[in-house]
Amino acid sequence: MDSHTDVKHLLKAGATLTDAALERLLPAPDTLPHSIHRAMRHSTFAGGKRLRPILALEAARMVSGGTLTPALETAAAELGAALEMIHTYSLIHDDLPALDNDDLRRGQPTCHVVFGEATAILAGDALQTLAFQTIANLHAPAATVVSILREVSAAVATGVGSVGDLHTSLPPGMIGGQVMDIESEGVKPTAELVEAIHRAKTGALITVSVVAGGLLGLGDQPSTTHDTIARLRTFGQKAGLAFQIVDDVLDMTQDSAQLGKTAGKDTATDKATWPAVFGIPQSIHDAEELIADAFAALARFAETAAPLKALANFLTERKN
Amino acid sequence: MDSHTDVKHLLKAGATLTDAALERLLPAPDTLPHSIHRAMRHSTFAGGKRLRPILALEAARMVSGGTLTPALETAAAELGAALEMIHTYSLIHDDLPALDNDDLRRGQPTCHVVFGEATAILAGDALQTLAFQTIANLHAPAATVVSILREVSAAVATGVGSVGDLHTSLPPGMIGGQVMDIESEGVKPTAELVEAIHRAKTGALITVSVVAGGLLGLGDQPSTTHDTIARLRTFGQKAGLAFQIVDDVLDMTQDSAQLGKTAGKDTATDKATWPAVFGIPQSIHDAEELIADAFAALARFAETAAPLKALANFLTERKN
Repeated sequence: MDSHTDVKHLLKAGATLTDAALERLLPAPDTLPHSIHRAMRHSTFAGGKRLRPILALEAARMVSGGTLTPALETAAAELGAALEMIHTYSLIHDDLPALDNDDLRRGQPTCHVVFGEATAILAGDALQTLAFQTIANLHAPAATVVSILREVSAAVATGVGSVGDLHTSLPPGMIGGQVMDIESEGVKPTAELVEAIHRAKTGALITVSVVAGGLLGLGDQPSTTHDTIARLRTFGQKAGLAFQIVDDVLDMTQDSAQLGKTAGKDTATDKATWPAVFGIPQSIHDAEELIADAFAALARFAETAAPLKALANFLTERKN
Repeated sequence: MDSHTDVKHLLKAGATLTDAALERLLPAPDTLPHSIHRAMRHSTFAGGKRLRPILALEAARMVSGGTLTPALETAAAELGAALEMIHTYSLIHDDLPALDNDDLRRGQPTCHVVFGEATAILAGDALQTLAFQTIANLHAPAATVVSILREVSAAVATGVGSVGDLHTSLPPGMIGGQVMDIESEGVKPTAELVEAIHRAKTGALITVSVVAGGLLGLGDQPSTTHDTIARLRTFGQKAGLAFQIVDDVLDMTQDSAQLGKTAGKDTATDKATWPAVFGIPQSIHDAEELIADAFAALARFAETAAPLKALANFLTERKN
């Protein structure tokens, strides 16, 4: 399962399932209003690797002992599609002129470049709505659906977790990370600030993908849920932080063609990044240590954890 | 219950309960990141009348036979707060330079004027997230929470309902109404187009406020749910459309000081409005007829429906 070929197969199968679910769930391009439905599809089908959906799918599979029933696989794919909608909405809004002002994403023109700012703002809004609607409509026990909704909504909210002794009681959330990321431009980053931003901006959604997949796979098995979910959460937190560190390193060491987006942008805007604080060699070392911690969290699941471990390796070994 | 004083009491009590829930649920202004939490509060506490929360509260009270237990009243206030967050998020995004470009709302400077465009976009996003998080955390049976989430997410999605024989299979949703409203500028409006926009842009959220309040009040009483919810839905659809027609008429007949926002804006931008298609006298007649239909839908609830009826009257008799 840890070989290069097997990860490729895992990624391809997961992306195919996710894309089929997205195709079913997104409004058809010929339904009114056309413009927003086409904008939602433009950004959703712009070449993402579906990492968050695949993490959710493999977490559901792991807690189910390594195989999913067809019904559970469909539900996991729909949950994954919802997570990808949230990721896409955050990218659409992040790319807007008032935020990062990016014209290029995954090698494609961004949503506002193609459809205009008004439609891009509303398409992002609508993808967030459709994500919650999709989770609310999952074929799963109502208590499971509610647990997933609580986890996902907290993970994409405004918290940033603890930053030194600054006052905050909110758990890390994606929007909070985006705000802190913008506000940290031009400020000399501290290790604590960078870690808080990473845990919130990308870490929270990656972590909740693993946790939500686990909750869906466990369904109404309350006795085993608590410990399993805690382990999946640790795995997601560690692997998610490692993923972001590697992303920061790639931004400094690769060109735009390799990245499919504007390279060196973080450095140019003085963004708070891991290598900016710790340097590249230490960053690579930290990412490796985090992956080891992530693996340790899943040790008790033995071979059934192999797909999640292979994904974590892939996330931190990729060249783009 | 239909007298002027009683409606005032109803509105004041409902707004007080809603504001207390919003105060509890919105992140404190001294939690990080400060800017977005202050922006969320700025727009949420900018003088709204809390009509949607009050409709939800009174629908919950009606289906509970006229009184709410303290626990159910708290839950209804939190549901109402969630609906108000969604309403506020839609206003923040609607006011952005790329959309309606409004500097003034309810007599106050709009969110992007005070906090900048980037923070306003993210504050709107975060209010939508917090609305779904609030509903997911309601103290109610899980099946009820899921039903409410399905209704609310559909009501704020991208559908526009049927527009003549144009192709669409989606139920009316708030974002769809906003898109059609923008796209209809400068186009000669037809009766069908105006009705579809109104049902989606404002009608869907008003209707779902009544429906969700009813679902919360009924809890797990499945045998009575279907007919009661159908009646509440009809009430919400009719009263919601009447409310928007009156809003359109006020925009044409009042000045900015009376409205607390820029008057005549709909006419200046050739927006699709009811009086633009039917004229003012016919519009007033239509609103009255819709209110009569709304009342008829609640006839079987006798005196317990008096608060909802008083609210419907207030919505269409108000001077601002």
